[in-house]
Amino acid sequence: MEYPSKYIEKAVEEFSKLPGIGKKTALRLVLHFLGENEHFSESFANSITSLSNIQECPTCHMVSDLEGCTCGPEKKDRSILCVVDDLRDVLAIQSTNQYHGLFHVLGGVISPIDGITPDKLHIDSLVKRVTAKDSEIKEVLLALPSTMEGETTVFYIARKLKEQAVKISTIARGVPIGSELEYTDEVTLGRSIMERVAYNTAQ
Amino acid sequence: MEYPSKYIEKAVEEFSKLPGIGKKTALRLVLHFLGENEHFSESFANSITSLSNIQECPTCHMVSDLEGCTCGPEKKDRSILCVVDDLRDVLAIQSTNQYHGLFHVLGGVISPIDGITPDKLHIDSLVKRVTAKDSEIKEVLLALPSTMEGETTVFYIARKLKEQAVKISTIARGVPIGSELEYTDEVTLGRSIMERVAYNTAQ
Repeated sequence: MEYPSKYIEKAVEEFSKLPGIGKKTALRLVLHFLGENEHFSESFANSITSLSNIQECPTCHMVSDLEGCTCGPEKKDRSILCVVDDLRDVLAIQSTNQYHGLFHVLGGVISPIDGITPDKLHIDSLVKRVTAKDSEIKEVLLALPSTMEGETTVFYIARKLKEQAVKISTIARGVPIGSELEYTDEVTLGRSIMERVAYNTAQ
Repeated sequence: MEYPSKYIEKAVEEFSKLPGIGKKTALRLVLHFLGENEHFSESFANSITSLSNIQECPTCHMVSDLEGCTCGPEKKDRSILCVVDDLRDVLAIQSTNQYHGLFHVLGGVISPIDGITPDKLHIDSLVKRVTAKDSEIKEVLLALPSTMEGETTVFYIARKLKEQAVKISTIARGVPIGSELEYTDEVTLGRSIMERVAYNTAQ
């Protein structure tokens, strides 16, 4: 497509580098800026450049502002540590309001075929964190994807922490709430039967 | 959702101001920047701020770079002028490779309910352009949306240009190429019968 302006062309090119944004969507977004005033574009551009102020916390590997990370000492259950693949999983778990403990972001899962070996992930720092003298961690909850790579990573970390006096758990797998049994895939349904939970008759 | 950084929060907010981008998509896009180097964000932000270099051509109301508009005198069929709603329609028509004439962008269609009266659109400048002494325009092709508002605008412009020695045409309405007749809506199918085209038996 021939663009009427090289500035539009450049902006479309930049937008279409983002995941899930093709040339048509990119053009629609860029033309939206033309309809707005200059302050709109500037405020948008500033918010992007100021992302460079974000740092990675050396302890939990979550991103954080310069002021300090959310893994700091305030109001957290420090006896449980949830291990996740990436930042989005932290946000998803936080939004459930069912978890108030610490997090540890691995930055991926073991996948030798993609060149992601255990040393490329924050596994060593996880072990260090759990074995630290002042550690209050009693349980490590592995909340990793239920893919081949995720399961491999669970197995690897469990082996690494075997000798430590911490309980290791994984998130429950089963039929999602609100789902019909007949539409659930066999593996998930099978797992939900294998890992069935005692029903509390007293409630 | 609670974001781990106020910079992420700000960028998510800015992204979700764009059309068709919700909070979840915005977050996915923002996190993509964190995975790239600083040059990536900078180049992206620059492309947005440099959109302010774009100007509107006072003749055809298309956006153009400072160097000059595509409605300039080079290699164009200056006897036909295509009137469209907005810039995206220009790009869509250009990409068909079936039109090599001039364009005129109205900047909308008449819609009194939304406060868009004829004086808010570039209709006066269209009339001026057609009636100019040095005008070479022989035909005005109205390529406007086939909505109530589009049809009203076609009617209004046709009335305005009635006295002028120019042919007025609209784009053909009918069954899209590759479509099944049974799935075409009745109005379109009816129109395609009313405006049937003589078949060239000599070909």
